[in-house]
Amino acid sequence: MKDIDFCNINTCSALYTDKYELAMGQAYYKQSRHQLTAVFDYFFRKLPFDGGYVIFCGLADLLHEIENLHFSKHEITWLHRQGMDAQFLSWLENFHFTGIIYSMKEGEVAFPAEPLVRVEGNLVEVQLIETLLLNYLNFQSLIATKAARMRYVAGNRHLSEFGLRRAQGLGGIHASKAAIAGGFDSTSNVYAAKMYNLKMMGTMAHSFIQSYDDELTAFRKFAEVHPGNCSLLADTYNTLKSGIPNAIIVAKELEQKGQKLQAIRLDSGDLAYLSKKARQMLNNAGLEYVQIVASNQLDEYLIRSLIDQNAPIDMFGVGTSIATGLPGSVLDGVYKLCEVNGKPKIKLSENIQKITFPGMKQVYRYIDENGFFTGDAIAGWHEKIPNKMIHPFDPEKSIELDTTKATALLYKVMEHGKSLLQDNNPADVAAYAKERLMQLPEEHKRFNNPHIYKIGISEPLHQLRNNLRKHYKI
Amino acid sequence: MKDIDFCNINTCSALYTDKYELAMGQAYYKQSRHQLTAVFDYFFRKLPFDGGYVIFCGLADLLHEIENLHFSKHEITWLHRQGMDAQFLSWLENFHFTGIIYSMKEGEVAFPAEPLVRVEGNLVEVQLIETLLLNYLNFQSLIATKAARMRYVAGNRHLSEFGLRRAQGLGGIHASKAAIAGGFDSTSNVYAAKMYNLKMMGTMAHSFIQSYDDELTAFRKFAEVHPGNCSLLADTYNTLKSGIPNAIIVAKELEQKGQKLQAIRLDSGDLAYLSKKARQMLNNAGLEYVQIVASNQLDEYLIRSLIDQNAPIDMFGVGTSIATGLPGSVLDGVYKLCEVNGKPKIKLSENIQKITFPGMKQVYRYIDENGFFTGDAIAGWHEKIPNKMIHPFDPEKSIELDTTKATALLYKVMEHGKSLLQDNNPADVAAYAKERLMQLPEEHKRFNNPHIYKIGISEPLHQLRNNLRKHYKI
Repeated sequence: MKDIDFCNINTCSALYTDKYELAMGQAYYKQSRHQLTAVFDYFFRKLPFDGGYVIFCGLADLLHEIENLHFSKHEITWLHRQGMDAQFLSWLENFHFTGIIYSMKEGEVAFPAEPLVRVEGNLVEVQLIETLLLNYLNFQSLIATKAARMRYVAGNRHLSEFGLRRAQGLGGIHASKAAIAGGFDSTSNVYAAKMYNLKMMGTMAHSFIQSYDDELTAFRKFAEVHPGNCSLLADTYNTLKSGIPNAIIVAKELEQKGQKLQAIRLDSGDLAYLSKKARQMLNNAGLEYVQIVASNQLDEYLIRSLIDQNAPIDMFGVGTSIATGLPGSVLDGVYKLCEVNGKPKIKLSENIQKITFPGMKQVYRYIDENGFFTGDAIAGWHEKIPNKMIHPFDPEKSIELDTTKATALLYKVMEHGKSLLQDNNPADVAAYAKERLMQLPEEHKRFNNPHIYKIGISEPLHQLRNNLRKHYKI
Repeated sequence: MKDIDFCNINTCSALYTDKYELAMGQAYYKQSRHQLTAVFDYFFRKLPFDGGYVIFCGLADLLHEIENLHFSKHEITWLHRQGMDAQFLSWLENFHFTGIIYSMKEGEVAFPAEPLVRVEGNLVEVQLIETLLLNYLNFQSLIATKAARMRYVAGNRHLSEFGLRRAQGLGGIHASKAAIAGGFDSTSNVYAAKMYNLKMMGTMAHSFIQSYDDELTAFRKFAEVHPGNCSLLADTYNTLKSGIPNAIIVAKELEQKGQKLQAIRLDSGDLAYLSKKARQMLNNAGLEYVQIVASNQLDEYLIRSLIDQNAPIDMFGVGTSIATGLPGSVLDGVYKLCEVNGKPKIKLSENIQKITFPGMKQVYRYIDENGFFTGDAIAGWHEKIPNKMIHPFDPEKSIELDTTKATALLYKVMEHGKSLLQDNNPADVAAYAKERLMQLPEEHKRFNNPHIYKIGISEPLHQLRNNLRKHYKI
């Protein structure tokens, strides 16, 4: 084996970036432009899962990384061997992010086109963190959103994340955390559970049962060692003819010792049919308290279908779809320059939806008398709260706004490169997401053709964009 | 911030597992079964991308992790606080994987149902590595397979991986490496490039151009700093009216200094149309040597379409689809127990495709007189090379086999917990994958309804499976 330190995946390495960030950084430095200030916005264009919203997630992890971002001496030497400029590299040796970040609160309900995060700093530092920021926020927001969709249909039933084996490599660490932040109750991922103080869940695989000569012995042995926390997997040989009857025997034996079987788990077959039959068999044996856990390729649609069929399932174990955010598996967030040294900047495109909003901005959310969200307006940073907004991509459309219950969504989360957050607690994110989703009208939460949430831009921002479009129009 | 060490994502931590592996381990230990030997197979059931094969990838990374797997004192203390048994934990303090691993060679062309990896060891250790093994091999094999598909259509054109910003969090590290192992030429991911000694690629973003007052100045300044390696992004304002004409001006200025513009990059619009127009404009200016790079939501189908349209593109930059393996984003590999203390074990299912193959096995590949692969047979470990194989899920079907050019695919890669591999070099994996794909007949490589590669089981294995099915049939 080569001497590569696989064991220390130090994600606070500033090498966790795209090559072009360094190439641009070097060009800025060599042209003495590295002290110009620049402002970037993070936003996305398309809602994942054909859904109506995104749950913003990953901020605390990101700020922690940015706070500790650096190039080690070893990395500088390596970059030099790759042909990078020695002067620029000696400047990078002391590199730390020194900028300011404004952001929505983690757990916020967010919509396309509006800035979720705004980064201010010198041209080199704001560019160097681009890839890291997109990598962290896109993925965690995708997974938190997926989790929120499952929570939406699961009601108060327990949702457990089981996806590490199907996760995209080390992405599984943040996937488990983001699932909890989006509304899951627990995870099978021990590493993530320790890192983020998450509730863990997990009992036995088929292999445990196979390792004994018969299923009943396997169940008994497992119950002996885990009497207080025993969930038996019922489908290794035959769920209704073997798994459930054997689980009932063990439950009754536990009762003799004053103990209680916690649950049985179904991991194959028709979960609606099997859960009903299993419930009946358990109840007939006086085991109403034994819970039923279901797993096997579940997603929000299957969970909804099982609940619609009155399947008596107490807990859903979800793997692949939550760990990878299928289908789609991507939030298309981008990071776009909007200002340099106080001058607003624009990126043009033949597609109006890809033309950026120039200048420093704030996002205002308008709330009705019942506490429901009615729309978000994007405005210049120094504007008053807009009382009118224009459709971002169809300037003929505009609506009046009631500013009495409007609130700003972007607040300062980093200053001089130091995070202003107190904590990185997924449970807090989950609580905030839950609160905000309750304020989002139902029609934006349904799965089929959800109503499009109203986003607009202020009149002055509209003017500024038009002026810059004219300026650059060839 | 809480005192969580985010900066040290130590993936050699044995906590990188599912909770149930520890729950089962504790049960085995407390029942004094932890020294029983067990054998597990890694295999997958469904080919990703509706394709005809998988490129096996991730082995060297996995073996490195397994070799170094351990529980730190801190982790043991934490597990104790989670209610785990103190005796078992004190055994885990000295935990190291001590088993044997047989595997296909990394880069091998693999097919459903056949074991790609076989793990032998004591019941606890083989169980504890399950999640890690699946997490690493499933994801890297998915990405290497995706990369091989793009290489298949791209011919000798340069393929560069640009996906870190859309990758699933830290999964991006292995994604970039697996892309190279599957046939890509380079990556934008600096971290992965250093870790695995990969060729890096990357020049400028739109923001670089926006940061100047005009595009021509931005191009000139970049070329000044990167004269030998200058690729100009042409679509910030208007590709044909501004980007290409300005790039031509800069190319001519570079010529005055004896330097050459390397490339222009197109990142939006109709890439077939724009690349042809750009090529014409460059050629008319005597700049035949300036290459054209294309990016923007590319995948194997778009690359094929661009080449079919004779788009004069020299290099493709691929992001989202290669970093996440869209669509599907998952290889469904599983890890199943096949033997305990020398006794073959089976997992039953109502679905014959989900019934496992019991016992220790070898996989043989049959090669015709022209060097092409004709089929793979799975047989018991101590059998002779089979001269007949039976369809794994339809026992009425069988075919005769010519054993003269059959070779075994599983070889020993770990002994006493020590890796027997010499190196972890993605370029070697890529070379082997390329060689093996040349031996795979064309009809298995096409995208639409590829011909199904023949897989079978030996007569004795078929008998063993039938006997165990009868034994456990309720």
